[in-house]
Amino acid sequence: MAFTISPSPRVRRSPFFSATVEDGVASFSPYNHMLMPTGYGDPEGEYWRLINGVSMWDVSVERQVEISGPDAANLVQILVPRKLDKLKVNVGWYVPICDHRGTIINDPILLKLEENRYWFSIADSDMLLWTRAIAAERELDVDIFEPDVSPLAIQGPKADDVVAALLGESIREIKHFQFKPMSVDGIPLMVARSGWSKQGGFELYLMDASRGYDLWQKIKVAGEPWGIGPGNPNAVERVESGLLSWGGDTDDYTNPFEVRMERYVHLDAPDDVVGIKALREIHAAGIKRHQVGVFINVDGQLEYIDRVSELQMDGSVVGKITAHAWSRRLKRNIGIALVNIDLTVGKTVEIVFQDGRVADGITTELPFI
Amino acid sequence: MAFTISPSPRVRRSPFFSATVEDGVASFSPYNHMLMPTGYGDPEGEYWRLINGVSMWDVSVERQVEISGPDAANLVQILVPRKLDKLKVNVGWYVPICDHRGTIINDPILLKLEENRYWFSIADSDMLLWTRAIAAERELDVDIFEPDVSPLAIQGPKADDVVAALLGESIREIKHFQFKPMSVDGIPLMVARSGWSKQGGFELYLMDASRGYDLWQKIKVAGEPWGIGPGNPNAVERVESGLLSWGGDTDDYTNPFEVRMERYVHLDAPDDVVGIKALREIHAAGIKRHQVGVFINVDGQLEYIDRVSELQMDGSVVGKITAHAWSRRLKRNIGIALVNIDLTVGKTVEIVFQDGRVADGITTELPFI
Repeated sequence: MAFTISPSPRVRRSPFFSATVEDGVASFSPYNHMLMPTGYGDPEGEYWRLINGVSMWDVSVERQVEISGPDAANLVQILVPRKLDKLKVNVGWYVPICDHRGTIINDPILLKLEENRYWFSIADSDMLLWTRAIAAERELDVDIFEPDVSPLAIQGPKADDVVAALLGESIREIKHFQFKPMSVDGIPLMVARSGWSKQGGFELYLMDASRGYDLWQKIKVAGEPWGIGPGNPNAVERVESGLLSWGGDTDDYTNPFEVRMERYVHLDAPDDVVGIKALREIHAAGIKRHQVGVFINVDGQLEYIDRVSELQMDGSVVGKITAHAWSRRLKRNIGIALVNIDLTVGKTVEIVFQDGRVADGITTELPFI
Repeated sequence: MAFTISPSPRVRRSPFFSATVEDGVASFSPYNHMLMPTGYGDPEGEYWRLINGVSMWDVSVERQVEISGPDAANLVQILVPRKLDKLKVNVGWYVPICDHRGTIINDPILLKLEENRYWFSIADSDMLLWTRAIAAERELDVDIFEPDVSPLAIQGPKADDVVAALLGESIREIKHFQFKPMSVDGIPLMVARSGWSKQGGFELYLMDASRGYDLWQKIKVAGEPWGIGPGNPNAVERVESGLLSWGGDTDDYTNPFEVRMERYVHLDAPDDVVGIKALREIHAAGIKRHQVGVFINVDGQLEYIDRVSELQMDGSVVGKITAHAWSRRLKRNIGIALVNIDLTVGKTVEIVFQDGRVADGITTELPFI
């Protein structure tokens, strides 16, 4: 949609904003009361840079909810239906946050900073409100706030080389989902091996917003030998890789089992965990929907589509495609779909787009690649 | 900021979207995981149409949180530090929603539909999550969801004539903040005398998203004799009128007393109301900040500014301007500021804009007009 975005103090600026403007940012998507860069005018180049090289992303919209205080560990376990007793300091885990109905209301990374100090690095919903509501209602002794922390992702097969050039060879020893505090020229960072792509890399959690421009420039310089360039959480790569977009692929009734998050739900988590009783019931009754891939048989390359498409079989609605993409590697149009549990892979479906177009499709396994 | 907005299923479409596109919508602002139209390319004309004529706004981003069930009235009172015993069916009240610290987390209109059925018509934060958290933690018997309801505002001195032409003369008897169910050609509406301007008018709560385009066209036709045209919650008029923009004028520490909402807080509300104890303490201790207007002495007409400006006196920070505007009626640059309680009206302050510019200003009463 080619419309401009009105300036408003309600929509906060990224600390990397001026740097991304200098580098030609062309489009944004709203996220957590901020704007996330979504393109720099060269979708083809930005895609292949992520797949074959290295890309740097302003993902400061992944805001942190910091929880500290005597009851912090207790509260964090109450908020998450995944048992956290094995989560160590300096490790971050992908976790669902569910409401009391067992519906996913966010899918953050939970970073354990100290025994009683955590960050939720959140998707696009107001987890600051949610965590404060639960903490206060249960009268827990915690301090909850949004710290001055803004992630910048470096993703792609050359990401390790770039981050090593910036921060030293020791970063190669950081294992998947580990993180550690580091700094470069006095810029304080939390350096984590994570990121919303399957191409590998790091997220640098900037802990001083006033240094955003500096950090961006230093990464550009460090990454130059590897051809680094600006990019963004890639709407094509994530569909190919089957990564979940909370709020896009999920609706107001989606539980974790429906969207391939079984492994992050422990039904023997404590009884006081929010949603655990509902999740046990849902699991016992059996889920009604699940996620599959769909090969979409239309000519041309599907543009980004901002609404779901309906899936039908024999005239009945059997699900919906929640994300569409032209796969540059598969050279096919593909989609992620949430469908009735009895619709398995290898089936032919009819796709009804919201603009009225109709096409055939074939269900398949996720991820595509 | 002249950037495009990427299509994403995470950002939902307004039922009036195609109609606003046909009518030349040029800019948007993100709000409640949707896009609110903020301009049609003629800010001057759009402003005077609101002041002297009549304007129609897509404010479907004002989403509803519906609460029904045996404990609905009980829950709604728990969520709001204003005593609701005198709120009647078919009346909507402006209410603060506070967290347990007494901080405002939303400032909705609360519409009482039936004895145990309500809508919160919300500002830009996830009240669906908040209300569900409190309801579930207190084990109340309620059903909470977002209904298919999308407000469209008709604002300005000619609004009554237009709405009467559309829905009949009986609408003139609807008093301020009253509402009633009506329909036009089978389009179901809740018609309320309300709206985010001081120019008078109505909000038509569309209760069938599939009829958004139809409703828009019918209002255009009905309003033609009065020169109706598209507009939006006006960033200039609201500063002149001193209307609060939650999330823009407020921060993570703002209580209702600081932002002229004393009359909507009843300290003798029941003890189980969320935040009431904190509000009593805040009130007893005396507030530290309050809102004033500022005349801003800079040449030219201030463009919309998306960040706060700092206010200083004798080199010390004494507050911040949270909204800036060129007042077309006063022909002056003005702002709404949140300042130290001892900074009264008629004082000269130094204004430091975030781009480094410096100017003088004089504090004044709110509203400006």
